[in-house]
Amino acid sequence: MMEQSRPLDALNQARNKRVIVELKNNKQFVGNLKAFDIHINVVLENAEEREGGEMKRKLGTIFLRGDTIILISPE
Amino acid sequence: MMEQSRPLDALNQARNKRVIVELKNNKQFVGNLKAFDIHINVVLENAEEREGGEMKRKLGTIFLRGDTIILISPE
Amino acid sequence: MMEQSRPLDALNQARNKRVIVELKNNKQFVGNLKAFDIHINVVLENAEEREGGEMKRKLGTIFLRGDTIILISPE
Amino acid sequence: MMEQSRPLDALNQARNKRVIVELKNNKQFVGNLKAFDIHINVVLENAEEREGGEMKRKLGTIFLRGDTIILISPE
Amino acid sequence: MMEQSRPLDALNQARNKRVIVELKNNKQFVGNLKAFDIHINVVLENAEEREGGEMKRKLGTIFLRGDTIILISPE
Amino acid sequence: MMEQSRPLDALNQARNKRVIVELKNNKQFVGNLKAFDIHINVVLENAEEREGGEMKRKLGTIFLRGDTIILISPE
Amino acid sequence: MMEQSRPLDALNQARNKRVIVELKNNKQFVGNLKAFDIHINVVLENAEEREGGEMKRKLGTIFLRGDTIILISPE
Repeated sequence: MMEQSRPLDALNQARNKRVIVELKNNKQFVGNLKAFDIHINVVLENAEEREGGEMKRKLGTIFLRGDTIILISPE
Repeated sequence: MMEQSRPLDALNQARNKRVIVELKNNKQFVGNLKAFDIHINVVLENAEEREGGEMKRKLGTIFLRGDTIILISPE
Repeated sequence: MMEQSRPLDALNQARNKRVIVELKNNKQFVGNLKAFDIHINVVLENAEEREGGEMKRKLGTIFLRGDTIILISPE
Repeated sequence: MMEQSRPLDALNQARNKRVIVELKNNKQFVGNLKAFDIHINVVLENAEEREGGEMKRKLGTIFLRGDTIILISPE
Repeated sequence: MMEQSRPLDALNQARNKRVIVELKNNKQFVGNLKAFDIHINVVLENAEEREGGEMKRKLGTIFLRGDTIILISPE
Repeated sequence: MMEQSRPLDALNQARNKRVIVELKNNKQFVGNLKAFDIHINVVLENAEEREGGEMKRKLGTIFLRGDTIILISPE
Repeated sequence: MMEQSRPLDALNQARNKRVIVELKNNKQFVGNLKAFDIHINVVLENAEEREGGEMKRKLGTIFLRGDTIILISPE
């Protein structure tokens, strides 16, 4: 249990992996987690917005402001 | 009463146990509490989203941003 | 008037007593106040959710995030 | 004008007096102001909730979290 | 332009003058600005609430919590 | 690119010029930018509120609390 | 992976490039990213507001307050 006792450790393990990010406005983005900080600002690459499981638009690199994020999970 | 005088002590006692997490948007997640911090950011493993007591979707590991959380309780 | 000049003193006097906690989403929880901190995060034991004065569900130990709380009062 | 140049001075002058506290959710509480802090967390004694000028429920001592408060005024 | 380069300087010039304060909940208060702080908490004396330009209720001294305020303007 | 690498530099260049300020509640104010701070609290002089491009009311000097502001732009 | 491990690095790479900024109120602005800070306050030049992919209004230079921003992405 030594490893991963802090929430940001879990984000660190997801770095460069494909993650789902869900926002307070119910939007869902999927992309490769390139960066995050203590405010949970995140940068996704090869990102797309999804709706009902289907791709809504392709976005390339996106910066998402942390205070809009509810959930981050490896896909 | 010495032990458990601070709220985070209660979260610490729930570590690695199955907890229910309820969010401001009324969503409910259940999973093993792997990590938390002073912002109440939490990481759940073997997580699932529930609705009306029934599983809605399986999610694996999820990071939940603290400011969206209302309640955490051992299942 | 020396004693109880700060709001947290009042919470301290309610420690281990049965309190009502009302949230911004209009939910009401009742339980024994085990812990609180300066963010007004609280832990209740033998907690239950109430609606219209009647018990809605039994919850055991719950952690409530401070920024969702409006009011705390000894029952 | 030396005295009362800061807002908390006005709250201090209202200490132990009957005040009306109005919240963001439009609820109105009346009670004796026993304590407050820089977050405007307040404790009222002999408190009651009012609606349309009439008493809705008696509450005894209540702790109100500052970030839900809009207005405090001596009755 | 040396004088009044910071927003709080403008509030300072309005001290003891009659100001209109508009809140996020669309309420409008008018009174003599007695005190303010960096959070924009303000105290008004001889205050009244207005609606559609007409007095709705007389309030005496009121403390308004800064984070509910949108606009302050000398009447 | 040395000059104007920080957002507040852009506000500084707009000082004493006529700016449009748009708020979270969709209100729009126009006036001469006299002062601002790091919270983006701003003071406008010769201010007016606009609606649909037309003047709704004249306001003189106004203090706008930063956390209600979405956008500031030279007219 | 050394470069771009922090979210603000991604914004820095987008400096002087055309970016899309989406706000919590669903508004969308496009412009050249001239400046940003740790609050994610941003300044866009040659900015325009878009709706449904079409230009709604031309705005020149705009300052956008960080706490209203959800997403920033190179166009």
